[in-house]
Amino acid sequence: MSGAFWIAVDWGTSHLRVWRMHRHEATNEAHSDQGMGRLAPEAFEPALLDLIGPWIQGAERVQVLACGMVGARQGWIEAPYVATPAAPGDPSAAVAAPVRDPRLDMRILPGLSQQAPPDVMRGEETQIAGLLLEDPGFSGLVCLPGTHSKWVRVAQGGVAGFQTFMTGELFALLSGQSVLRHSMPDELWNDDAFAAGFAAARDDAAAMARSLFAIRAAGLLRDVPPGVARARLSGLLVGAEFAAMGRDALTGAVAVIGGGAIADLYRKAFDLTGISARIIDAETATLRGLCAARDALERG
Amino acid sequence: MSGAFWIAVDWGTSHLRVWRMHRHEATNEAHSDQGMGRLAPEAFEPALLDLIGPWIQGAERVQVLACGMVGARQGWIEAPYVATPAAPGDPSAAVAAPVRDPRLDMRILPGLSQQAPPDVMRGEETQIAGLLLEDPGFSGLVCLPGTHSKWVRVAQGGVAGFQTFMTGELFALLSGQSVLRHSMPDELWNDDAFAAGFAAARDDAAAMARSLFAIRAAGLLRDVPPGVARARLSGLLVGAEFAAMGRDALTGAVAVIGGGAIADLYRKAFDLTGISARIIDAETATLRGLCAARDALERG
Repeated sequence: MSGAFWIAVDWGTSHLRVWRMHRHEATNEAHSDQGMGRLAPEAFEPALLDLIGPWIQGAERVQVLACGMVGARQGWIEAPYVATPAAPGDPSAAVAAPVRDPRLDMRILPGLSQQAPPDVMRGEETQIAGLLLEDPGFSGLVCLPGTHSKWVRVAQGGVAGFQTFMTGELFALLSGQSVLRHSMPDELWNDDAFAAGFAAARDDAAAMARSLFAIRAAGLLRDVPPGVARARLSGLLVGAEFAAMGRDALTGAVAVIGGGAIADLYRKAFDLTGISARIIDAETATLRGLCAARDALERG
Repeated sequence: MSGAFWIAVDWGTSHLRVWRMHRHEATNEAHSDQGMGRLAPEAFEPALLDLIGPWIQGAERVQVLACGMVGARQGWIEAPYVATPAAPGDPSAAVAAPVRDPRLDMRILPGLSQQAPPDVMRGEETQIAGLLLEDPGFSGLVCLPGTHSKWVRVAQGGVAGFQTFMTGELFALLSGQSVLRHSMPDELWNDDAFAAGFAAARDDAAAMARSLFAIRAAGLLRDVPPGVARARLSGLLVGAEFAAMGRDALTGAVAVIGGGAIADLYRKAFDLTGISARIIDAETATLRGLCAARDALERG
């Protein structure tokens, strides 16, 4: 096996995704649900080998580069955070993970931390590095929507600071387990209700807290078309992010790193705010970031 | 049995509480966990008789007056909301519940509704009626903290309008089921952290959404004393209520109807805001409100 062969790994709380790489090109891909959240430390190596075993048969030693929650304290091995401001995805701070299989040269990239206000990320920094590999001069705000949405200020090739919102987790809890679940028994959606909820919460930071229960009350007092309650809840929560970031934060370039429906949702939110956000596919960004780290490791 | 004997019932989502009454005096009390949330319509009468059976032996007919979620659409029988502005706890709108036991003259008091913004209450209106029985001239804001906190504008002997917050439910979901649960493994508390979180969210309506994840991040980045995370979360959520109500709402008389630790918490929040709130015990207020409704029924 030549030095051009390596393995890229995106290992989050609930997913494991691996790519067989030839330099910057993915030649194969595999994934499983063996996320960090369900694995004890000794279970990481077998979960990885389940996916990449066929790719490394006969290899002497293969470099494996991983990002994400696999480097958390409860992960395979802790990869301590690098404090911001910092260049994202710096592999010099990567941690070698203990392995039994001598073929594995396993490295885990660190996350980023911010002291004030306290904040952390693991995985998103690699996506930012991917953006910067493609566009080294990018300067502006990067929005990474998800369970815990991140808004990242990028300047001079590094992360200047960032802000996390629990938007996705709040949506899941409120739509699935709170009294609001009775108002959204199906998965339907209503674009206008999203837009109205978003604008209300974006333009008045108090509106989110004030308007949650009204979703339930509206359904008790009048006929509400299907999909309205769910979309309005989403709009209120996303709008609260925009309100908290403030208009000033949105004056420069804005990129959204995300995939599928959630990227569309945030694109719409930026559109409604008169901002043309560039959309970057999350998986593409992750893979590019891992490639950037691999390049840096190769350079030594 | 004389007409002075009746039964007062506070029937919420998760509790059932009954009092054996002689006019305005409670001569016995009983309760169970047979709340509306776990009962099919035909199970309400047996759940009630389990508690009051011994009190009505030999009676021909007994008036039973109930408030709370027992009158919801999923309750014993729906007691349609009375639209605000309205006098709270008006028994002329009470609904007779269907019974098998001929001794029961069962009436359920209606809740209150508000069209814009949409909002509803069931049970709190009876507590407001209790406040007004004791202090008919009360005019100001009544805060009823709980799973769904209510802020009620009372004027001219009636409810002018109200606003519900999902504060208690958000606290339970975030502290028990979100990623923040890892930061609060115990039930400890820290008064200073409550005060700081409360002030931050009260003075900046965007602070609550912005500061939730920081509770988790702080615990990952530094040693946080026990109780700080839980109290800070509570402070942020209660502070968001105050931010949404606004200073203007708090210029007049303020009463808090609540019991135990939650009443203490809101008393502290008002103290921190320089407002001396009168505290009224929730159970006392409910019972007084049921007495007021009983008086009105007796008058015809």
